[in-house]
Amino acid sequence: MKQVAVILSGSGVYDGAELQEAVLTLLAIELEGASYQCFAPNVDQLHVINHLTGDVVEGETRNVLVESARITRGDIKPLTECNVDEFDVLVLPGGFGAAKNLCTFAVEGADCSFNEDVLTVCQAFAKARKPAAYACIAPALAAKVYGNGVKLTIGNDKGTAEGLNALGASHVDCDVDDVVIDNEVKLVTTPAYMLAENVSQAHRSISKMVQTVLGMK
Amino acid sequence: MKQVAVILSGSGVYDGAELQEAVLTLLAIELEGASYQCFAPNVDQLHVINHLTGDVVEGETRNVLVESARITRGDIKPLTECNVDEFDVLVLPGGFGAAKNLCTFAVEGADCSFNEDVLTVCQAFAKARKPAAYACIAPALAAKVYGNGVKLTIGNDKGTAEGLNALGASHVDCDVDDVVIDNEVKLVTTPAYMLAENVSQAHRSISKMVQTVLGMK
Repeated sequence: MKQVAVILSGSGVYDGAELQEAVLTLLAIELEGASYQCFAPNVDQLHVINHLTGDVVEGETRNVLVESARITRGDIKPLTECNVDEFDVLVLPGGFGAAKNLCTFAVEGADCSFNEDVLTVCQAFAKARKPAAYACIAPALAAKVYGNGVKLTIGNDKGTAEGLNALGASHVDCDVDDVVIDNEVKLVTTPAYMLAENVSQAHRSISKMVQTVLGMK
Repeated sequence: MKQVAVILSGSGVYDGAELQEAVLTLLAIELEGASYQCFAPNVDQLHVINHLTGDVVEGETRNVLVESARITRGDIKPLTECNVDEFDVLVLPGGFGAAKNLCTFAVEGADCSFNEDVLTVCQAFAKARKPAAYACIAPALAAKVYGNGVKLTIGNDKGTAEGLNALGASHVDCDVDDVVIDNEVKLVTTPAYMLAENVSQAHRSISKMVQTVLGMK
């Protein structure tokens, strides 16, 4: 049975992991007959967004690891405990958390900084030539990790695609139901909620991504 | 296309809606060709639980409607805006939120109190003889709403089942993959994470519940 490491970035699309994508990722992994362990960095979120109004909640802080535990019913480990030797595949769902808490692409574009622990783990999978999948806006991290014109997608948003290219990627436009595969570095990406208009579209996007990355040798 | 009203109770199993169940509910509704609108009461949660440690977070308050909006990407309405005439079916996923925020069954058992707005909406669906589905621990609400020996399930936990019977229900043991149907009042219940050990079991439980309730005349 393949073991998948999943990196979460909070719980809620606007300041954390897109939790629908996260749940659909865990479901897809199980339905493909694989097993997973979730991880998240033990750091504060960039900010807290009231998901009803879209406003920043002034003066409130939430921790990425603690909030991510909401998605996993408490079963999650600090990202520093993720040992690449114990896993076959890496998967990152999206949500603004990937571009606010794992890196700062959402606010600084190609000039963004990256969480060191996240980079270390993602680079370890790349170096070990183990397959990885990044959904939605998480390919911003993949652009930095792989560089060298790596083929990836965040859908078809031109400005975002240019930002990823500035980080070293070669963006490929992609429909919500499809994936972009870079076989050279064993990377699979999919637009998910960068394009999905509902949960069943996100489900198809995430399922195809998970099936594809689990099918890689 | 059938219209489903979904009542959420926060975002996170220990103090809100079981968010995996909530996402799987929305997915199942769409995959069955129906449409949904989510609602939640605009009240403070009973408390906030750190989902990593399981401890109550002293001094922190979160709002049920605001946190539920994390599950729905912001698309949610206050429960007071739920008009039974606009919907064909009612669905309540579980999580401790259903038994802490929608009622207090988790802390007071059969002596619990019920959120008035929740009772009003649930009773309106019952009175209109429109089908309803309650998952996991949410059948505690159904016991109060339907009473009169209504057939329902929370799985097979004896103490919890006795509490529901004290509220007027007639509990029926049920496996995680199955549902209990009371055709007389058009009620479907399923254990979901009262018994599920992983997300794919919860998926089967919730999917069967949603399929069954959407199939009711």
